[in-house]
Amino acid sequence: MTELQVIPGELRPPRPSARRHLLSVADLTRDDIERLLATARAFARAQERETKKLPTLRGRLVVNLFYESSTRTSSSFEIAAKRLSADVLAVKAAGSSVEKGESLKDTTLTLSAYEPDVIVIRHPQIGAAQLVTGFTDAHVVNAGDGKHQHPTQALLDLYTIADDLGRIEGVQVAIVGDVLHSRVARSLVQALRLMGAAVVLVGPPTLVPAGLAEFSHDIDAVRDADVIYVLRLQHERMAEGLSFVPSLREYAARWGITPERVRPEQRVMHPGPMNRGVEIDPRVADAANALVVEQVRNGLAVRMAVLYDLLTAGPVTVQAAVGVA
Amino acid sequence: MTELQVIPGELRPPRPSARRHLLSVADLTRDDIERLLATARAFARAQERETKKLPTLRGRLVVNLFYESSTRTSSSFEIAAKRLSADVLAVKAAGSSVEKGESLKDTTLTLSAYEPDVIVIRHPQIGAAQLVTGFTDAHVVNAGDGKHQHPTQALLDLYTIADDLGRIEGVQVAIVGDVLHSRVARSLVQALRLMGAAVVLVGPPTLVPAGLAEFSHDIDAVRDADVIYVLRLQHERMAEGLSFVPSLREYAARWGITPERVRPEQRVMHPGPMNRGVEIDPRVADAANALVVEQVRNGLAVRMAVLYDLLTAGPVTVQAAVGVA
Amino acid sequence: MTELQVIPGELRPPRPSARRHLLSVADLTRDDIERLLATARAFARAQERETKKLPTLRGRLVVNLFYESSTRTSSSFEIAAKRLSADVLAVKAAGSSVEKGESLKDTTLTLSAYEPDVIVIRHPQIGAAQLVTGFTDAHVVNAGDGKHQHPTQALLDLYTIADDLGRIEGVQVAIVGDVLHSRVARSLVQALRLMGAAVVLVGPPTLVPAGLAEFSHDIDAVRDADVIYVLRLQHERMAEGLSFVPSLREYAARWGITPERVRPEQRVMHPGPMNRGVEIDPRVADAANALVVEQVRNGLAVRMAVLYDLLTAGPVTVQAAVGVA
Repeated sequence: MTELQVIPGELRPPRPSARRHLLSVADLTRDDIERLLATARAFARAQERETKKLPTLRGRLVVNLFYESSTRTSSSFEIAAKRLSADVLAVKAAGSSVEKGESLKDTTLTLSAYEPDVIVIRHPQIGAAQLVTGFTDAHVVNAGDGKHQHPTQALLDLYTIADDLGRIEGVQVAIVGDVLHSRVARSLVQALRLMGAAVVLVGPPTLVPAGLAEFSHDIDAVRDADVIYVLRLQHERMAEGLSFVPSLREYAARWGITPERVRPEQRVMHPGPMNRGVEIDPRVADAANALVVEQVRNGLAVRMAVLYDLLTAGPVTVQAAVGVA
Repeated sequence: MTELQVIPGELRPPRPSARRHLLSVADLTRDDIERLLATARAFARAQERETKKLPTLRGRLVVNLFYESSTRTSSSFEIAAKRLSADVLAVKAAGSSVEKGESLKDTTLTLSAYEPDVIVIRHPQIGAAQLVTGFTDAHVVNAGDGKHQHPTQALLDLYTIADDLGRIEGVQVAIVGDVLHSRVARSLVQALRLMGAAVVLVGPPTLVPAGLAEFSHDIDAVRDADVIYVLRLQHERMAEGLSFVPSLREYAARWGITPERVRPEQRVMHPGPMNRGVEIDPRVADAANALVVEQVRNGLAVRMAVLYDLLTAGPVTVQAAVGVA
Repeated sequence: MTELQVIPGELRPPRPSARRHLLSVADLTRDDIERLLATARAFARAQERETKKLPTLRGRLVVNLFYESSTRTSSSFEIAAKRLSADVLAVKAAGSSVEKGESLKDTTLTLSAYEPDVIVIRHPQIGAAQLVTGFTDAHVVNAGDGKHQHPTQALLDLYTIADDLGRIEGVQVAIVGDVLHSRVARSLVQALRLMGAAVVLVGPPTLVPAGLAEFSHDIDAVRDADVIYVLRLQHERMAEGLSFVPSLREYAARWGITPERVRPEQRVMHPGPMNRGVEIDPRVADAANALVVEQVRNGLAVRMAVLYDLLTAGPVTVQAAVGVA
């Protein structure tokens, strides 16, 4: 991977909006990712100023359409939009027309009649974001569709690794835990491979399916990793009468990331919200080599970059975009 | 009806704010409606620009006080206010002081202490918006009070008919379905008559009461209409132990608007959210002569016009109001 | 107490941000309170203008983190922030990561990664706001933590008394009702004493604990007060199987503030939302000497002052802060 630096004032060539949506990591090229991370880095620097708000997307409208509860992701997109001076309409499925049984298609058609610039959608069903693109002229960002994809999470994880380790290529990442139910894992594996990192999936056979990537059913497999990426145990997605883990206590004992299982030079990441004491020991979560808070911080810059990238197609300098408001 | 055109730069005479609230279509004169539709048309044109936001109501505060769930109407008012640069406070009854049993009077007094410019209220009880006017200095907009009135819906429907057919006077409108529970029907009938359109109400005797307008209990009565206006079957308002329809399936068969019941030159409208397969066949909803999405789009312009009209009384040109932000 | 006047253009000396949070009235000096009330007065005057919005906190971010439902307080902070041109992120516990069991610590760490300027927190547990300060660089405002503190309510009550009676020192205040469950009472007693007012707590022995202040178990004790401060009967905090009052009807008869119990020259206050007909008679609530709406109005100015005071430390004139937007 080339360096993620932004040369101040550098002119980017006019770029046709080849990818008007961000639905899946699979849609991105390595160049796309490098461009997005570079833009995110510029925005991250702008966030170090006293005044963090930029006029870049003044007058634009971002609709946050969330069919699953979320503080983390919906807040991140909302603040990203507001920091760029866009307006935000937050639509939550509960307390909306959705309760009256309106289909996703009709909700999309309705919201699109207001001509938003971007629709950010989270939905429990695989393919929901893709479906939305069929009924809107807005740019669509997939903020999680069932067990399928969560591309901005993968991007912020890449950013965090690159920012902390100085590179992504050649980095060894062990993804530990509930891979089966995790859109985060699915997106991240694709993204890491595309950028030349090595991935191993670690967890019990019930939660780590074969075929996605190299895997191990032995927790010791995290030992050689540069980054231990701990997945959230998805209680809510398991409520199907199936028993994937014997008990939370036994899961914690066998697969939980405890101080004994982490070397100081390893980095620990988690997409949040954490189940402290289950998949991650509180001492690990709070240690200096945990990057959990950095992930959230970087998520803001990455989402600013995604919104900016989707909405600007012409010969714009990143420098100009982060000019003082 | 005179033409709904706006002459650029045209000066409107100083107009005392004769109607400080928008509670019912019954309060409006034909001149009021023509003025509102003309203003809405100017705003609709402004929405065709890349930058849709206008500085018109900068610094103003609009309170959205919703005692019933709604995406469509609350979003429409929220975006309308934001497109005019006003701030919006969204108050939902669930999760508010209302849960602590506070009366509408005290909630109004409380919110009015913040000196909002406009209170938009939706409430399940007839007369709620009227009641609110007694306890506030804000302009009040009725966004639906029980089965009574929903005047901005009627205005956006008038706008849609005028925009699509070029006129309202003499247009034949068949309103089909659950007239009994529908504030939309009640408001629309008044508005159409005021503007010189002809109305027939069509549906089963249990749902189409006598006395409101000409009516028919035969679905064939829609055949001669220029516009078939399909009402939503109000499941939620029927939950009173009473049986207004034998079954959804039978309702769909006898009163549902299917392709066989619509001629290509007829227009089909629906206030949303649609029960596809019940009162409206999906093929009708998605056909080229369905104006459902246009209704939503026009609703934004109409609500911008209503907010603007309530908040400006002096010699203002519409042209000035829609100047670049 | 010295006069709460602001000399236009007066320069305040550079003041190190000695108190970066507002957690409890106990943290405030008399000077702090006088400064905050003076600032609030300047903002109240600015709210009398046609355009109420000020550019003071443009680009700043205020997070409203509410673990209990509230219209009154969350709206007040939201409008206060918006009137100062700050952005607001409203996070409600219901429908958030909180539902996934995330701890207050992790939620704070997450939200703080977005680098908000202020976190306003309401939480059912005592000490929650204090806990938040350990995990954020933001200024923290306690908007109510269990039965403990609600300092901005106390400040707005002081403001209301000073504004209406012209002084706080020497004023006699009778606080009536459910003192036991009331953070409002706890904060207000401290604040009144600090400013030299005299306080008597009035109510049944089950609701008026000894040790807080002078108290009486006789409703006639309100007779000599300049201000009768009526507390809300906290139904929701009593749902613990304990019976603090025999019945609402009997409570109203014995402790409710009826017209017979109020002299015209006395002022009546209530923090809202009111249980009309229980702790306060509707005729009292609506009388000319009731200051309930004034309390809400003043709350907005006081919260603007608190946000402003926390976020400005340098040699700033209040005059400059309330300059035209």
